Amino acid sequence: MCRWLAYSGTPVLLEDLLYNRKHSLIDQSLHSRLGAETTNGDGFGVGWYGESETPAIFKSVEPAWNDRNLRELAGHVRSGLVFAHIRASSGTPVQQTNCHPFRYGRWLWMHNGAIAQFHDVKRELMLEIDPTLYPHVEGSTDSEAFFFLALTLGLQDDPPAAVARAVGLIERVGRNRGIEHPIQMTVATSDGVRLWGFRYSSEGKSRSLFYSTLVSTLREVYPDLAVLQELSDESRLVVSEPLGDLPGAWNEVPESSYGVIQAGQDEMHPFTPQSPS
Amino acid sequence: MCRWLAYSGTPVLLEDLLYNRKHSLIDQSLHSRLGAETTNGDGFGVGWYGESETPAIFKSVEPAWNDRNLRELAGHVRSGLVFAHIRASSGTPVQQTNCHPFRYGRWLWMHNGAIAQFHDVKRELMLEIDPTLYPHVEGSTDSEAFFFLALTLGLQDDPPAAVARAVGLIERVGRNRGIEHPIQMTVATSDGVRLWGFRYSSEGKSRSLFYSTLVSTLREVYPDLAVLQELSDESRLVVSEPLGDLPGAWNEVPESSYGVIQAGQDEMHPFTPQSPS
Amino acid sequence: MCRWLAYSGTPVLLEDLLYNRKHSLIDQSLHSRLGAETTNGDGFGVGWYGESETPAIFKSVEPAWNDRNLRELAGHVRSGLVFAHIRASSGTPVQQTNCHPFRYGRWLWMHNGAIAQFHDVKRELMLEIDPTLYPHVEGSTDSEAFFFLALTLGLQDDPPAAVARAVGLIERVGRNRGIEHPIQMTVATSDGVRLWGFRYSSEGKSRSLFYSTLVSTLREVYPDLAVLQELSDESRLVVSEPLGDLPGAWNEVPESSYGVIQAGQDEMHPFTPQSPS
Amino acid sequence: MCRWLAYSGTPVLLEDLLYNRKHSLIDQSLHSRLGAETTNGDGFGVGWYGESETPAIFKSVEPAWNDRNLRELAGHVRSGLVFAHIRASSGTPVQQTNCHPFRYGRWLWMHNGAIAQFHDVKRELMLEIDPTLYPHVEGSTDSEAFFFLALTLGLQDDPPAAVARAVGLIERVGRNRGIEHPIQMTVATSDGVRLWGFRYSSEGKSRSLFYSTLVSTLREVYPDLAVLQELSDESRLVVSEPLGDLPGAWNEVPESSYGVIQAGQDEMHPFTPQSPS
Repeated sequence: MCRWLAYSGTPVLLEDLLYNRKHSLIDQSLHSRLGAETTNGDGFGVGWYGESETPAIFKSVEPAWNDRNLRELAGHVRSGLVFAHIRASSGTPVQQTNCHPFRYGRWLWMHNGAIAQFHDVKRELMLEIDPTLYPHVEGSTDSEAFFFLALTLGLQDDPPAAVARAVGLIERVGRNRGIEHPIQMTVATSDGVRLWGFRYSSEGKSRSLFYSTLVSTLREVYPDLAVLQELSDESRLVVSEPLGDLPGAWNEVPESSYGVIQAGQDEMHPFTPQSPS
Repeated sequence: MCRWLAYSGTPVLLEDLLYNRKHSLIDQSLHSRLGAETTNGDGFGVGWYGESETPAIFKSVEPAWNDRNLRELAGHVRSGLVFAHIRASSGTPVQQTNCHPFRYGRWLWMHNGAIAQFHDVKRELMLEIDPTLYPHVEGSTDSEAFFFLALTLGLQDDPPAAVARAVGLIERVGRNRGIEHPIQMTVATSDGVRLWGFRYSSEGKSRSLFYSTLVSTLREVYPDLAVLQELSDESRLVVSEPLGDLPGAWNEVPESSYGVIQAGQDEMHPFTPQSPS
Repeated sequence: MCRWLAYSGTPVLLEDLLYNRKHSLIDQSLHSRLGAETTNGDGFGVGWYGESETPAIFKSVEPAWNDRNLRELAGHVRSGLVFAHIRASSGTPVQQTNCHPFRYGRWLWMHNGAIAQFHDVKRELMLEIDPTLYPHVEGSTDSEAFFFLALTLGLQDDPPAAVARAVGLIERVGRNRGIEHPIQMTVATSDGVRLWGFRYSSEGKSRSLFYSTLVSTLREVYPDLAVLQELSDESRLVVSEPLGDLPGAWNEVPESSYGVIQAGQDEMHPFTPQSPS
Repeated sequence: MCRWLAYSGTPVLLEDLLYNRKHSLIDQSLHSRLGAETTNGDGFGVGWYGESETPAIFKSVEPAWNDRNLRELAGHVRSGLVFAHIRASSGTPVQQTNCHPFRYGRWLWMHNGAIAQFHDVKRELMLEIDPTLYPHVEGSTDSEAFFFLALTLGLQDDPPAAVARAVGLIERVGRNRGIEHPIQMTVATSDGVRLWGFRYSSEGKSRSLFYSTLVSTLREVYPDLAVLQELSDESRLVVSEPLGDLPGAWNEVPESSYGVIQAGQDEMHPFTPQSPS
């Protein structure tokens, strides 16, 4: 439904992430190869961590390929932790409050996929959101409701466990309504220090998700590729679909898994929804 | 916070209602005289009943004084039952789903005023909305929540009673939270046949509301005013503030009252919130 | 680059032209089959003749497939002469003043294609526009400049001759600059009574253009097709690409030709640019 | 017609210039005190010099007081040379290409005021723009035409002389058409190093323009004002109207004058239009 990109590493200009690639995210807004829809023209959003306490967010309802302000910012904003998302609406209105990434305090969240028959389960899910968090929901998407469920269930303390609980809750509510496959998802979230990426779907056929190979490894394989010299060993991209065709550069996140991008060794673990007690 | 206009009568071009007046609604978007804010530039909406089952709605987040599409439509669309609303946001985002009028089936609804501390009471009020209506809420305003509460409480059967119940509910919920004056409102609603206008506030100092004098009376006073010859005796305007300075043309709706514009004799009654049992 | 539709005939709701088809224009905004680009998401416009002297125009920079206002209007506006255009920008900004159709008095104009290297020839072409018309140019596209050249050269008196002169001028200016194929075009224009459609390109490989078969003929072939009973014999569509797959319903406009849709017999003639003297 | 602000000095967050003031520019968008219009809600723009060769520009057609993206950027972008402009259209369309500041290479330009009867003189003025610059004009305002005339007449070599020539040209063209007072202006322009501010009108009653008192002087008068400790002695604001009420902080630019903000001593000189030979 959507395409997204998350980056952690050496501070770079946004344009190096969003535009200067063979099959960049902006190119994917017009011509996605692996998405459920080839066109992702229903708004976009970019979030980045900078000098302020909370990350910045820039959102627009225009298609990303058209947006002059995005082009301007991308050439002037530099960050070491960036989220970018292009949207193909599955029905909810095209408005800034429905664009990803969503933010709460220092946390960013973006989602590709859907809560099945959201129309039917929305009320029940919204009621599960902590009453003190509830008024912070601004838009009408399943993705934002999912974010606030994860916040309610402990995202800020233990992200993998909170997401597992939120997915477990969504699956229980959906199945109680006779929905066979209640959720389809890839998700990225961050607190400005670490970055988590999830791939899961109730039916076990999840939307695509890839992470970039270790920069140190790529440097050995491509000693002449200048861009690799500028990036720290810690630099990593997580993307809905590869940004180019460099052999060996992209690795698929396995079904029902999540990864953690962090200082030192990154990690990959299985992901299992957790039924609420 | 906002300004609005409702018209029922001889079908006229929208431009005759919205533009061709000394102190038109479009003029009020820049220079309101009686509003809480002089500028009402946070989007607008127009609804009208035409040949289709459901009324049409045109909404925009641009200031009304700027919108070329509104100017175009106003010169080409003719209707005998029109709602128009210019918004001055009290905090919720400026997006089409937050612009008035709101629609459900054949019903239109618009509101000037606010539910006090809506942030604090929103969750509790949203829970009172009928679960089958709940998924139809699209935006995030107090005004739309108010509409769906009225629908839940019988708007389609007995509008004055349903609005009285909804206001009673809002006041109870607010006062339970220690809010002294839970609601401030003028409201217009219609099913395409009759038109109801309400003026009320918990503190008894309600936003202004006016209705136009009977066309037959005006014709006697101003026998030379051409526009009056074109309008049926049944034609009537209800407005947040008078559209011009014609002496005798505008009458204030009394505090805590509602009026009904309908075929035959229009009516005015006291309005009393009804505590939910 | 773009897709368009022009309709003349029995007054119909816009939605019957724009939405209720297998391969409607709105569908083409996401998935064009014959266009130079598959996505036409850089704004759109609709023009229609109604009760007012001048035709109405509704334009938006949002993709047509997203626009709720267009959906609303389409269900409530009825007209017997309609222009609709979805844009894929060839570089000029996405803004309402660059959306088609363009209007001057009672005349509408829309264009698919491009003036080659417009950046290089724009100044010279703008100087050829009549000084009294020049201030009415609002946007920055080649298509609008082309319209005002045609107006300068007699569009209101003899449309085919004026377009032939304008194309001759564009080709002369382009070739003086060493541009091999100065123009690529399909064009629709109307004065509210007749409708002209042109297909031409300097290289002789013009963008596609189709017109619908006579309603009387279609009725004989498809006696059971209800929609055909509602349309007058005079009803006709001219489109960039067929709106459906009904065999026998669509006919290609020949290379270097123009057609006239009018009361009585419609006409088709060869089109030859006319060098300015 | 508009309000603007130009800043040169110690790099600061945009929000310190745009929001955190008693009578900030954003506040002026709703409630200007000295402008020809109290509301400046017809779009806005911000330009700033950063790490890239060319300055960044962010423009929007929404009123500045509403724009969430501006609020976000203002909290994350830091610059030592900033232009900001809020627009009250004098008739030309509200679109990004008509928002100030305008940019050419490293140059920024913004304008308050108008070329009188621009509709009548536009063609003649556009013809005076250098043919190689002409295609870079993107919008339809008098202000952008004025910028390109100044570029044509040497802005990049000698800004005060070029502006004097451009104004002389505009006055000659206007007066040839019988326009009594052809121009009304305050203008700011910069190459990223120096900043020039102009105040002039043909009738000698120019729009207001102010510059801030030397930081070193203010520090002596207000030794306890913390913000002054953070700003270098070179820091300077030029504004359409004062951003606050601090006595002694604001000085009116005299009629028919221009100032230069630069490393070392700033300058103020008389401004006299120069008739083209």
